[in-house]
Amino acid sequence: MELIEVIESKKLGKSLTREEIECFAHAAADPKTPDYQLSALLMAIRLQGMDARETAELTMAMAKTGDMLRPDVGGVAIDKHSTGGVGDTTTLVLVPLVAACGGRVIKMSGRGLGHTGGTIDKMESIRGLRTELSEQEAVEIVRRVGCCVAAQSGELAPADKRLYALRDVTSTVDSIPLIASSIMSKKLAMGADGIVLDIKVGGGALMRTLPEALELGRAMVEIGVRSGRRMCALITGMEEPLGSHIGNALEVKEAIDVLAGRVQGPLLEVSLLLGERMLLLAGLCASPEEGRAMLMKALRSGAGLSKLREMAEAQGGDGRVTEDTGLLPQAALSIPVTAAEDGFVQGIDALEVGLIARGLGAGRLRKEDAIDPAVGLVLHRRVGDRVKRGDTLATVYANDGRRGEEAVRALESAVRLGSESVPAPRLLYALIGEEGTELR
Amino acid sequence: MELIEVIESKKLGKSLTREEIECFAHAAADPKTPDYQLSALLMAIRLQGMDARETAELTMAMAKTGDMLRPDVGGVAIDKHSTGGVGDTTTLVLVPLVAACGGRVIKMSGRGLGHTGGTIDKMESIRGLRTELSEQEAVEIVRRVGCCVAAQSGELAPADKRLYALRDVTSTVDSIPLIASSIMSKKLAMGADGIVLDIKVGGGALMRTLPEALELGRAMVEIGVRSGRRMCALITGMEEPLGSHIGNALEVKEAIDVLAGRVQGPLLEVSLLLGERMLLLAGLCASPEEGRAMLMKALRSGAGLSKLREMAEAQGGDGRVTEDTGLLPQAALSIPVTAAEDGFVQGIDALEVGLIARGLGAGRLRKEDAIDPAVGLVLHRRVGDRVKRGDTLATVYANDGRRGEEAVRALESAVRLGSESVPAPRLLYALIGEEGTELR
Repeated sequence: MELIEVIESKKLGKSLTREEIECFAHAAADPKTPDYQLSALLMAIRLQGMDARETAELTMAMAKTGDMLRPDVGGVAIDKHSTGGVGDTTTLVLVPLVAACGGRVIKMSGRGLGHTGGTIDKMESIRGLRTELSEQEAVEIVRRVGCCVAAQSGELAPADKRLYALRDVTSTVDSIPLIASSIMSKKLAMGADGIVLDIKVGGGALMRTLPEALELGRAMVEIGVRSGRRMCALITGMEEPLGSHIGNALEVKEAIDVLAGRVQGPLLEVSLLLGERMLLLAGLCASPEEGRAMLMKALRSGAGLSKLREMAEAQGGDGRVTEDTGLLPQAALSIPVTAAEDGFVQGIDALEVGLIARGLGAGRLRKEDAIDPAVGLVLHRRVGDRVKRGDTLATVYANDGRRGEEAVRALESAVRLGSESVPAPRLLYALIGEEGTELR
Repeated sequence: MELIEVIESKKLGKSLTREEIECFAHAAADPKTPDYQLSALLMAIRLQGMDARETAELTMAMAKTGDMLRPDVGGVAIDKHSTGGVGDTTTLVLVPLVAACGGRVIKMSGRGLGHTGGTIDKMESIRGLRTELSEQEAVEIVRRVGCCVAAQSGELAPADKRLYALRDVTSTVDSIPLIASSIMSKKLAMGADGIVLDIKVGGGALMRTLPEALELGRAMVEIGVRSGRRMCALITGMEEPLGSHIGNALEVKEAIDVLAGRVQGPLLEVSLLLGERMLLLAGLCASPEEGRAMLMKALRSGAGLSKLREMAEAQGGDGRVTEDTGLLPQAALSIPVTAAEDGFVQGIDALEVGLIARGLGAGRLRKEDAIDPAVGLVLHRRVGDRVKRGDTLATVYANDGRRGEEAVRALESAVRLGSESVPAPRLLYALIGEEGTELR
């Protein structure tokens, strides 16, 4: 079968056969295939769509173009994936908590790109900590400690790698089947038995509206189920940043503060919502309520924080950071952002805040860019809070005075004040399980 | 403006602005533009369509990426274009006839590719005749003789050249706006004042159905009108081959036979239908009936045949061929195809006949292939004719015994016999003028 026949079928709006889909995935992984045929097919898929069977078959076919891991972690391997948000440090909170409850979490993450942070970058702000682990090293750590956060190793889904790069330059990113199959091909290749997805919705997320987020969540859950994985997806809000700390070391500090019981709020709440589903998929509890009770016990007893220390040390990092966050990289400058008037915080633009942190050096414009682990910002007020003129709304942490001042000015407009009170943004919009969707 | 923005607009189904269309045409003519962006945009256009304004603006923008000719032929320059058929020798019949009536025809043609013949290849079967003329040479011949048939010179619409090649390998050929703009960009660049289009419809043509042919014809007429040209399109049938001779020298022979008054039938009829419209656009007659009377007079007086001789000689060819077709290249073998049973000719598959002629060496599979001017075939019966077992249905002219025998066997199935009589296929389906469409 020739790729041109597959393009022809999708152009005519047909549902692609399994053979056609496999031809496409193999062609995408074959360097001899011309880009112009792949991009024509991507546009045809963007405009004609793909049904659930096609999407699931494409995902598995893309996964199979590379390594297929089957990590034996001595229990049910549970993975978690977020579509990316700002101040979204749930991984560093829930992975130790779930492991402290007996879960086995082998979390393979990427680095940050664009306005959202990457867990690997955050982890590496702990001195000495290695994330570039072999599959064998990662599995051994999980068997011993219960959890591990490693950078993606091996060659996972090379077909996806090529298509992802092409989509970016051909205006074919915004296709639910292509987004779902791209994310899930790597997840399936990583070999987890159960996967909990956190689909962010709102101005700071890839999915801007609830219907889009629901469509993506359903597509991803269906792909996993069709591949024999246990699946669950939560749709959670991303209008304002989830945590108050944005920046790599700053987010590690916030995760430690949460695990130490010093900080509550949306970051902890979403971590618990995801964590209870992970325990459910792992068969370690019979209900989300029971799962939450287990997680809260691990939080209150300090077992979660100890688990983070164990994991950091197993990965070669300085575990004392969990007791003394002053050991994390510190920025040279801290500059307050103050309120210009009395009123209420009516909005904090998560996308803008993510871009401000990137501007400070916390994130990347291009894959090859270096990041500065120390820089970022802390928000002292959330949407709905009342403020008085002169109150400190945020603090900017910078290593460069000019970039710090730019960040302050940008934050003054990203944090929108007004005279009327507004409710706090919603955290949970929906829960998508194997049996269907539950709107909240 | 970046090409990615244009892709985005068309993907979302928007009508492209003039600025976006010009960005696209310039990008297509720029070797630095990556093919993958052009092919994604072509697929978006194929699936989202383009309106009349977009199509006309794209056509003009593509034309302007190359040379824009303005030949001063000492009168109204009239061009004619056929979308390509089998046994379609109308150009060689009508160009001399129209010139004999006072018309000025500067006809720039292509070579044959696929199953349809090319006028340039046919012309070159006249010994010594040159078609690779400079614009100046061609103009001088038209001013002196009244007509000239030359190969496309200069670099006409390079944007189209690149897009045409990409469409072939990305399944985006079948788009009316892209077909119309591709043909018309070259026609506009050639600078004729009036253009008569012959849109073939049927099994042997690019357009298989009347609605498609009408859509293409209307799109092309509209493009020309919006660019200030006088326009007319005829939709003519291409179920069976138009003439009875298929092959390069054989088609020149048939054109001479028609101009000499020895042969009538569909080839002459379609030539007259197109010729009368050319005279109308040139302002040389007040009605098609008057135009036809002028053409018939030129035919009967032998002025058309003399004009063909003058033109051939002006282009360096052996004009005596118009008096003695035996001077044309002759094939070594002639093999009859006989009827296996009594009955009626129910169909002659034009596409198949075109492919048979190509198989004999009369046409090209690839642009760089050489052709054999002498080979081809002559059909002795048309659709609707009664035949008796043993009658000669066709004669194959070959220079290779094996290829000749293959052609005979293929013709035995391409000419379909049956016991019931069928009507002769229609020649004219519709006429599209600047004011609208007249169905026939």
